Amino acid sequence: MNLDFSKLNGLITAVIQDHATGRVLMVGFMNEEAFRTTVETGYATFFSRSRNKLWLKGESSGHKLVVKNISTDCDRDALLIQVEALGPGVCHEGYRSCFFRNLVGGEWEVSETRAYEPETVYGSNS
Amino acid sequence: MNLDFSKLNGLITAVIQDHATGRVLMVGFMNEEAFRTTVETGYATFFSRSRNKLWLKGESSGHKLVVKNISTDCDRDALLIQVEALGPGVCHEGYRSCFFRNLVGGEWEVSETRAYEPETVYGSNS
Repeated sequence: MNLDFSKLNGLITAVIQDHATGRVLMVGFMNEEAFRTTVETGYATFFSRSRNKLWLKGESSGHKLVVKNISTDCDRDALLIQVEALGPGVCHEGYRSCFFRNLVGGEWEVSETRAYEPETVYGSNS
Repeated sequence: MNLDFSKLNGLITAVIQDHATGRVLMVGFMNEEAFRTTVETGYATFFSRSRNKLWLKGESSGHKLVVKNISTDCDRDALLIQVEALGPGVCHEGYRSCFFRNLVGGEWEVSETRAYEPETVYGSNS
C-alpha cells in the first residue's frame, strides 16, 4: 500500500467520489495514519489541517462515507476514493457535494439547492 | 473568482473529471496564475511542483484538456474541473486516467489496459 506522502509534508490528496453517480463530493487530505484507518475501518478518515488531528468524516453529523473502492494515481501521491455517502449531504453547508458553486461569467454561482439545513445537524453555532 | 491559495503555499488542488463519463482523470495543482490561464485559454493549465513553473497539460503530447465547467468547494481551496480530454489518455503512462490502480487485498493492482503506448507519444527516453 506504499504511497508517496513526501510532497505535501506527510499528506496526500484524497478525492471523494459518489460510487453510484460519479459525482465528486469533496477533497480532503490524509496522512499515513488516516489512510490506514480508512482502509481498516471502511470509513473515510482524513487528517484535519485546521485541527491538526485525524478526522472521521461524519463523526458529529453521522454523514459518514462508506468506502467502496480506493484507487491511486501514477505518482502514488493522490487517492480517489469511491464511497456511499450516508445522510442527505456531504458538505457541512448543507449541500450534497462541497462543489456546489460553478464559475459563470467570472463569478462563483451556487448551482443547486441545499439537501438539508445545517442548523438541524450541527446546531445553530456551527 | 476569489480562491483561497493560502493553505498550500500558493497552490490549490484541481481535480480533473471527464465531463461526459464522470471519470476522475487526474489531480493537479494550480497557483493563481495557472488558474487564470486556465479560465482565459479554456485549457487546463497547472503549476508543476517538480519543474516550478506553469504547465499546459498536453503541451508536448497534444493531449490537452478542454475546460467545460469549473466548480469550487465550500472552502474555496479546491477546484473541480470538468473537461473533454483530447487524445487517447490523460496519463503519461498510457492510461485513460492516472487512477489506473485499485487497492485489492492490500496491494495496488493495475485495473485496466493501456489506451496508448507512451513511447509513441513521449519518445523512448521519457
